[in-house]
Amino acid sequence: MTFELHPNLQKKDFICDLDFCRVLFEDNRNYPWIFLVPRQENVKNMLDLPTPARLQLMREIERAETAMNRLFKPDQTNVAMIGNMTPQLHVHIICRFKNDAAWPKTVWSEKPIPYEPDEKQKLIKQIKQEILKDD
Amino acid sequence: MTFELHPNLQKKDFICDLDFCRVLFEDNRNYPWIFLVPRQENVKNMLDLPTPARLQLMREIERAETAMNRLFKPDQTNVAMIGNMTPQLHVHIICRFKNDAAWPKTVWSEKPIPYEPDEKQKLIKQIKQEILKDD
Repeated sequence: MTFELHPNLQKKDFICDLDFCRVLFEDNRNYPWIFLVPRQENVKNMLDLPTPARLQLMREIERAETAMNRLFKPDQTNVAMIGNMTPQLHVHIICRFKNDAAWPKTVWSEKPIPYEPDEKQKLIKQIKQEILKDD
Repeated sequence: MTFELHPNLQKKDFICDLDFCRVLFEDNRNYPWIFLVPRQENVKNMLDLPTPARLQLMREIERAETAMNRLFKPDQTNVAMIGNMTPQLHVHIICRFKNDAAWPKTVWSEKPIPYEPDEKQKLIKQIKQEILKDD
């Protein structure tokens, strides 16, 4: 099995690997935002995963979402699989706040604002620690 | 247990009930689009569901997505839990086509175009049959 990230996902910062998924960071200071990417070959969308793999994905979404919630205490979390532009299954987990840049709309039409490099590295470390806490 | 739909979801057409979720129809001819709503009290987002319920939700997403794929043969399916405007967990399952109104963008900023009443009833019947086929 050869797992390779789509070029659009290769650009994202690495946070950590879980048993089933790679966790990536979205460099957009408007929202705390991560991705879960199943470390499997040729998975375009959820239907390409057999049921047990889907259930494992659901467990890791729960784990990552719980960690993000503990860390950022958002008003709402958006969890989405879109994949129109990047044909490799990746789950968006996005913390939303009632005073954020797009609220109550979805985030995909807003222009991203990158973090300062130091701030980004600090955040990635915090998210990693929170997700791996229960290991 | 009293399950009640949020007023925003009460406006949607009923398709069918599965063991765990109610299936609703989005009246927008731009995209074949349904919702899965867990028939549980006070569920705002996925973290309000205990793990077994989440896994059951995942199984019903798989079932509904498979049925929509068989029926509409989309280029991609978008599966998303947003809930910024409607604070009751509902899973969007949206069939996307490379020539649809919003492609490759997400659908939430596009104005909906309702179906003709006859066409809508026919579609709801077809989707219901396809989802309940394996019962």
